[in-house]
Amino acid sequence: MTAVPSSSKAAVVRSFGSPVTVEEVPIPKEIEPGAILARIEACSVCGTDVHLWQGSLTTKVELPIILGHEMVGRIVSLGVGNHRDSAGQPLRVGDRITWTHTSCGACFFCTVAQEPTLCANTRRYMYDRMDRFPYLLGGFAEYGYVMPEAGRIRVPENVPNELASLSSCALRTVMNAFDVLDGVGAADVIVIQGAGPLGLLATAVAKVAGARRVMTIGAPDARLAVATEFGGDEVLSIERTSPEERNEHIKSLTEGRGADIVMEFTGHPQAINEGLELIRRGGRYVVVGQLGSGTTTIKPSVIVSKQLRILGSLSGRAKAYWKALEFIATHQGRIPFQRMISHRYRLDEINVALERMKTYQEIKPVIEP
Amino acid sequence: MTAVPSSSKAAVVRSFGSPVTVEEVPIPKEIEPGAILARIEACSVCGTDVHLWQGSLTTKVELPIILGHEMVGRIVSLGVGNHRDSAGQPLRVGDRITWTHTSCGACFFCTVAQEPTLCANTRRYMYDRMDRFPYLLGGFAEYGYVMPEAGRIRVPENVPNELASLSSCALRTVMNAFDVLDGVGAADVIVIQGAGPLGLLATAVAKVAGARRVMTIGAPDARLAVATEFGGDEVLSIERTSPEERNEHIKSLTEGRGADIVMEFTGHPQAINEGLELIRRGGRYVVVGQLGSGTTTIKPSVIVSKQLRILGSLSGRAKAYWKALEFIATHQGRIPFQRMISHRYRLDEINVALERMKTYQEIKPVIEP
Amino acid sequence: MTAVPSSSKAAVVRSFGSPVTVEEVPIPKEIEPGAILARIEACSVCGTDVHLWQGSLTTKVELPIILGHEMVGRIVSLGVGNHRDSAGQPLRVGDRITWTHTSCGACFFCTVAQEPTLCANTRRYMYDRMDRFPYLLGGFAEYGYVMPEAGRIRVPENVPNELASLSSCALRTVMNAFDVLDGVGAADVIVIQGAGPLGLLATAVAKVAGARRVMTIGAPDARLAVATEFGGDEVLSIERTSPEERNEHIKSLTEGRGADIVMEFTGHPQAINEGLELIRRGGRYVVVGQLGSGTTTIKPSVIVSKQLRILGSLSGRAKAYWKALEFIATHQGRIPFQRMISHRYRLDEINVALERMKTYQEIKPVIEP
Amino acid sequence: MTAVPSSSKAAVVRSFGSPVTVEEVPIPKEIEPGAILARIEACSVCGTDVHLWQGSLTTKVELPIILGHEMVGRIVSLGVGNHRDSAGQPLRVGDRITWTHTSCGACFFCTVAQEPTLCANTRRYMYDRMDRFPYLLGGFAEYGYVMPEAGRIRVPENVPNELASLSSCALRTVMNAFDVLDGVGAADVIVIQGAGPLGLLATAVAKVAGARRVMTIGAPDARLAVATEFGGDEVLSIERTSPEERNEHIKSLTEGRGADIVMEFTGHPQAINEGLELIRRGGRYVVVGQLGSGTTTIKPSVIVSKQLRILGSLSGRAKAYWKALEFIATHQGRIPFQRMISHRYRLDEINVALERMKTYQEIKPVIEP
Repeated sequence: MTAVPSSSKAAVVRSFGSPVTVEEVPIPKEIEPGAILARIEACSVCGTDVHLWQGSLTTKVELPIILGHEMVGRIVSLGVGNHRDSAGQPLRVGDRITWTHTSCGACFFCTVAQEPTLCANTRRYMYDRMDRFPYLLGGFAEYGYVMPEAGRIRVPENVPNELASLSSCALRTVMNAFDVLDGVGAADVIVIQGAGPLGLLATAVAKVAGARRVMTIGAPDARLAVATEFGGDEVLSIERTSPEERNEHIKSLTEGRGADIVMEFTGHPQAINEGLELIRRGGRYVVVGQLGSGTTTIKPSVIVSKQLRILGSLSGRAKAYWKALEFIATHQGRIPFQRMISHRYRLDEINVALERMKTYQEIKPVIEP
Repeated sequence: MTAVPSSSKAAVVRSFGSPVTVEEVPIPKEIEPGAILARIEACSVCGTDVHLWQGSLTTKVELPIILGHEMVGRIVSLGVGNHRDSAGQPLRVGDRITWTHTSCGACFFCTVAQEPTLCANTRRYMYDRMDRFPYLLGGFAEYGYVMPEAGRIRVPENVPNELASLSSCALRTVMNAFDVLDGVGAADVIVIQGAGPLGLLATAVAKVAGARRVMTIGAPDARLAVATEFGGDEVLSIERTSPEERNEHIKSLTEGRGADIVMEFTGHPQAINEGLELIRRGGRYVVVGQLGSGTTTIKPSVIVSKQLRILGSLSGRAKAYWKALEFIATHQGRIPFQRMISHRYRLDEINVALERMKTYQEIKPVIEP
Repeated sequence: MTAVPSSSKAAVVRSFGSPVTVEEVPIPKEIEPGAILARIEACSVCGTDVHLWQGSLTTKVELPIILGHEMVGRIVSLGVGNHRDSAGQPLRVGDRITWTHTSCGACFFCTVAQEPTLCANTRRYMYDRMDRFPYLLGGFAEYGYVMPEAGRIRVPENVPNELASLSSCALRTVMNAFDVLDGVGAADVIVIQGAGPLGLLATAVAKVAGARRVMTIGAPDARLAVATEFGGDEVLSIERTSPEERNEHIKSLTEGRGADIVMEFTGHPQAINEGLELIRRGGRYVVVGQLGSGTTTIKPSVIVSKQLRILGSLSGRAKAYWKALEFIATHQGRIPFQRMISHRYRLDEINVALERMKTYQEIKPVIEP
Repeated sequence: MTAVPSSSKAAVVRSFGSPVTVEEVPIPKEIEPGAILARIEACSVCGTDVHLWQGSLTTKVELPIILGHEMVGRIVSLGVGNHRDSAGQPLRVGDRITWTHTSCGACFFCTVAQEPTLCANTRRYMYDRMDRFPYLLGGFAEYGYVMPEAGRIRVPENVPNELASLSSCALRTVMNAFDVLDGVGAADVIVIQGAGPLGLLATAVAKVAGARRVMTIGAPDARLAVATEFGGDEVLSIERTSPEERNEHIKSLTEGRGADIVMEFTGHPQAINEGLELIRRGGRYVVVGQLGSGTTTIKPSVIVSKQLRILGSLSGRAKAYWKALEFIATHQGRIPFQRMISHRYRLDEINVALERMKTYQEIKPVIEP
């Protein structure tokens, strides 16, 4: 076993909007029963990181925190207990894992609703102060602390770090959205709203699930090109088409009905109105990207007259993390997931990565601390 | 067989907002194969009748039409063919039936989506001109014509006309909403928004379905009293409580979570916002009453952060008509459905009934032509 | 806090078929983190207790064990940790609880399948040797040990011990069966096979869930009388009717179709054949009572030609325990659950209770240690 | 419009087991409203044809009948009415269609259960006497009569006759089985029992639906080779492996659990026992191939202890026919469906085709009348 140092470099937010500072943060001496200390091998950057850093999240966050939450690490030490991952695989020092926000297993949402993502007592990485035990709850750091009540999934050997990292947030969110959708039929026409990481991954998952036709709406062209490489049947640029043109086009392909399924991954409240327009009577609308404080004005009659099912999907359960890793392991030969990884940075380049992410010059950069 | 006269008295709308005129309308001489002519025994008045009469529906309606669509009638003559009702019961002259809008059985919605209510070729009673064959497509009339592609359900002997009438619109809409909801659990807390006929009937159905606690929000007190008689556990008057008070109260009864299920039957777009507030994370929201052109401003983030399922429910399939009649037949000994029937009128009193309905002096009046 | 003695009286099986011996068993001095020590207030007797005692279970059991598994107890001491019950209620010394078999929360079945009942690492009460820590894993004892990975549910104040006890096995199994069934419709005709504790409780739950007609098949008449008191619409005695007569009768009530839903709680393999006969095309068959090693010969073509759904239901998750207690708390005013409790015994009368249970002289006796 | 002759050649069964005779059968002069007369372009041979011909079906069939039921034809004349196919496409003379058994649209199964396949009044092609109107209800004939209450689906232009033919029985049965299964997850391991036409097509559909791993059990090797060409991940020959070896192998690939989903297409009752063995706890078993009179002895406890869902799937609704054609139209570039078509025969070679089918020398021969 390697000697564990007493501190870890980590990217800390001390003031919203100011540059992140790379600091030495204590590594806990004591690993609680069931907890794990991991050497972080990669942590990809998510739009939410930028929002937290900029102070634009609706969730109130108490600073200072360590930024980053899409991480993969190698186990350095294990707390007392018999360690298996959340799907039953034995865990040992040296294994690579991703890990989840915590769920208590003992609340109405965990037990009765069986929706651990909605746990009344969840603790989420990157949202907890870094100046108290266990300090290392953010991903842009050399070391990370896996809380006892966090799910953890062993990464299959053939999945590289940058894709494992991706799977622990973007792809698990997409896998959860398909769980919520509850089944794609062989004849379904699916519209994906958004060509960010989630929209692109959803394009791939929808095609693998056998949808007859998958259309991705978004921009810029470079991202839409990835949608096509991921198997998307058609892309519709929001820079070159109007909502009316898109609606007309999709109706023309479906004998006037509209899409069987629309999935939203944009973050823009107005996307809801376009989604409600594009969907056919009796269709399903999965809403994923709406996490900001924005509002939009809708006609509720459309929900009734089309007899729609509108399904919110939040983050993802341990199950979704597991499915995400299995998905990459199974399909990476066929889907060029690496096209998502726009750049690699060292930890001390974190501010460059964040600035470029903020200005949409990246799809999914990876920090390798 | 009784002799069929050549014309039928019927209440005709010739100009939106003007008094309805009771006229002699031709009775078709030829009954098409599969069609039925019925002597109407009762037709209850629905809020939609008032909206159509006033010209305030979003659906464009070409006048003149015969008003009324919640009718029950006794078969007078049958077109060529082997007549069974939609649930397989043989039909003969003299049998009482209710009937549905038509569905073609040969479109994407009928065949692939199996949602006949969304049929691409539906024809609806009361929405078709009365000056061309088959003339008698409205309920406030002595005779009614059941189109070949309309479902028809034989009324159980023990169900009186006024309740059969009710079942053919208000209650079938409620039964469909519960189909869309797909299951009430023994521990579910349900909030019903609205104390009109739909909200009251939904209160009864929710209790029969075994919900732990059913709370009905609405007004005036006379209607809320019916909710209680129908088995509701608690009523919340919108005249005496604020939305904040209601929210606080419902949260206090559910350990801070909110209702497991909310069902909307109000017709007011703003009710959506209260509904989204009252529902717990992971809950289900069935939206039924939103048929007008109004709008409301929502925060889409609530759909995601609570991981909600919002389910539109439109009108009802033949199945819902059948369930509605079975429901009355089974539970009328226990639930005083008659409390819904506020008055009985003759056909020539139709304008009185409509005026009183318009000014909320009635719950559910019945025309007996 | 009361002083905890060093040993507890408990009913031990040392040899299959021989009388159970009441012995002094050590009370663990150390309560593990998350574990609980409870003073058992009641433990009802289950058919499985008799089967284990007689050595006729298919599961291999290593002796000696403490018999009994339907227990309710009052908390005497709590291991380290923040104690809430599985539905989020705080737990303190003096609270009454029921508890579940364990599930690890970290295996394929717990995480991916989200079926904790199928947990790969479950430990079940009454099946573990009593001569090693933590000793007190059976219900016919003064004290019981709640393992850290066991669910635990606080008993509502208005639920008496004997019913809480009942809820922790018989009723939670029934609640799980209704979860598996996934929805009772207002027009459903349900046949319950079996008039033991499970069949009787299922009769009550089916009626509360709003089934149109519930028919209970079983014997003897004393039990069938309870089915009627529990709301059952009709009972069919297996002592006075042949399978053919029952089939004919049920078909005659359903226009020749058969029951919409059949639920099996008999334990007799041949019941499967009658069930498959009684169910209508497109119906659902929930199988619960088949835990023995018996076999039966079926025609698989019936599954296809009727397009059946046959749904196995095993025991129950913590969710089912919670629902069971809520069900009693909500409906005990209306359903005379006490009719199930046939006798009360002291711990030293355990052999009398078991003998009478074995010879069907009891429905549900309770041991009050 | 081409002149319609007064009679059609057709392959008639007059005596079970004797050679089929090709006879002149009347073409109805009158096409009923809603009915269609079609020139049959292809009719593939199904195992059921052989069973009917041999008199080994459990369904009682009254002779003489015209054999064949997997047909595709071109419309020659249309009865009175506005013709659209079951998915809403307009139909004209010259269009190619496949068609379904009838469903009445007015029985409990059509209306309430919404399972038209279970229709109480269905009439099925090939099962009706050919010596009375409308005579032409079998597929091995020059002309075929589409009954008014039969669904009919227009064949997409790019789908050749032999595949359209296939879609109208084998593939629609498979599509229905996947409807019944209700969703394949990205991580699911699926075992297909049977390498006949249904098993092979199910292998293709399971892979298109995104199953992680599809294993096909059957024989002979030539068929298993097709499973591989259809995308199957692995084949297990019943000629070279024992049930125990297969079980061990599948368990070894699933960490000891077994398959998430098993689908049965064998026709052998004993396959049920192997299927129940191969499936994991909490898994789903779709049973399709069990249409004979055979029996098998099962342990019902496996249904409970594994908490299985066993789902029968019968034939298919119009929806399944539509999905089948869409599936071929979408995926024929990727899946070599033509590998199923083992030979083409003229109508007067029908006895050769049947004999070779009976002795397993064919997968799916096609008659081109």
